[in-house]
Amino acid sequence: MKEKGILIVVSGFSGSGKGTLMKELLTRYPQTYALSISATTRAPREGEMDGREYFFVSKDDFEKMIAKGELIEYAKYVENYYGTPREYVEKMMEEGRDVILEIEIQGALNVKKLFPDTLLLFVTPPGADELKRRLVGRGTETMDVIESRMKRACEEAQGMENYDYLIVNDDLDECVRQMHAVIQGEHLRSSRNREFIEEIREDLERLKGEE
Amino acid sequence: MKEKGILIVVSGFSGSGKGTLMKELLTRYPQTYALSISATTRAPREGEMDGREYFFVSKDDFEKMIAKGELIEYAKYVENYYGTPREYVEKMMEEGRDVILEIEIQGALNVKKLFPDTLLLFVTPPGADELKRRLVGRGTETMDVIESRMKRACEEAQGMENYDYLIVNDDLDECVRQMHAVIQGEHLRSSRNREFIEEIREDLERLKGEE
Repeated sequence: MKEKGILIVVSGFSGSGKGTLMKELLTRYPQTYALSISATTRAPREGEMDGREYFFVSKDDFEKMIAKGELIEYAKYVENYYGTPREYVEKMMEEGRDVILEIEIQGALNVKKLFPDTLLLFVTPPGADELKRRLVGRGTETMDVIESRMKRACEEAQGMENYDYLIVNDDLDECVRQMHAVIQGEHLRSSRNREFIEEIREDLERLKGEE
Repeated sequence: MKEKGILIVVSGFSGSGKGTLMKELLTRYPQTYALSISATTRAPREGEMDGREYFFVSKDDFEKMIAKGELIEYAKYVENYYGTPREYVEKMMEEGRDVILEIEIQGALNVKKLFPDTLLLFVTPPGADELKRRLVGRGTETMDVIESRMKRACEEAQGMENYDYLIVNDDLDECVRQMHAVIQGEHLRSSRNREFIEEIREDLERLKGEE
């Protein structure tokens, strides 16, 4: 029944450990998932490779990509563009891979508007107490840093109910299993299997006629 | 995060093996699931026990249960009533069990109307060919029997897209795992975790105020 891949957007609180989670998911199921690689106009840093961390492009080329509709979503931070090239995502999905985009809420909602079948996942610590601990840190941060983390977390929490599922990151191993189960379960949604349903119906009608 | 149980309706093609599937699921996860026990006015058969296969009640008592709203859904087949007592289902859900109702599509849709959070699962063979094989049988059935099975399957297929998920019963072991994954994944839906989201938000706002 499973054929085309699902487009998945993963967001979450800073400090929710979603980076580690993604890495572990891809290590464990390399044939099932593909991580979307963003295009950016910022310069590569030491050790970064074109096509691995990012596709590094010029501002001119990036703006051409926007104009030609080659990006699923994009945003500008501090004078640099970041965006999701459509081609790589669609190619992976056609091959049956579930493609993961790690982006912020505004981008997430834009992707969902464009591709209503997108699965939105929000990674969160197991509870507010734990989130507090992670945000406050080990007592070595300045008040300014903590305040700005707090403010950011409050903003991040505003969009939580727009996501389809909450992925609770307490134990990494358990969390990877949960996330995999949720995504693979989604493949069984009847709304994602209209063709299968139609096929069974047609076959039954034909067979009934043959009696 | 997981507290209250989910109400699950399981339907499926005759011959989809859903009886065996339910049994296996309950054997494997006895603390997680509870199977709803129907009330009926039909007489107990040899070996059936009140409160195990069914709650056996008189026609009078059944009609009182209807009048008092003590049934989640009910239907009448061949002069006998069958229905789902509300009390047992709600008690199990309060205890955190996911409660499974094995009923037909009309009942399923009625339950969903009454309890919009109900999860609807449809059990199906892996494809039309396999369904055919199971319906036609081993060549020992009369044309009448096959025809009536065919007709029934066509009717059953009509409602498939109203179910949330299709559970493909090919290999029993794999199917039990799929079904368990789908149900446990559903516990992580953000729509089922509004309280958790509110709590995190309130805590963050409070902590921000404390700085």
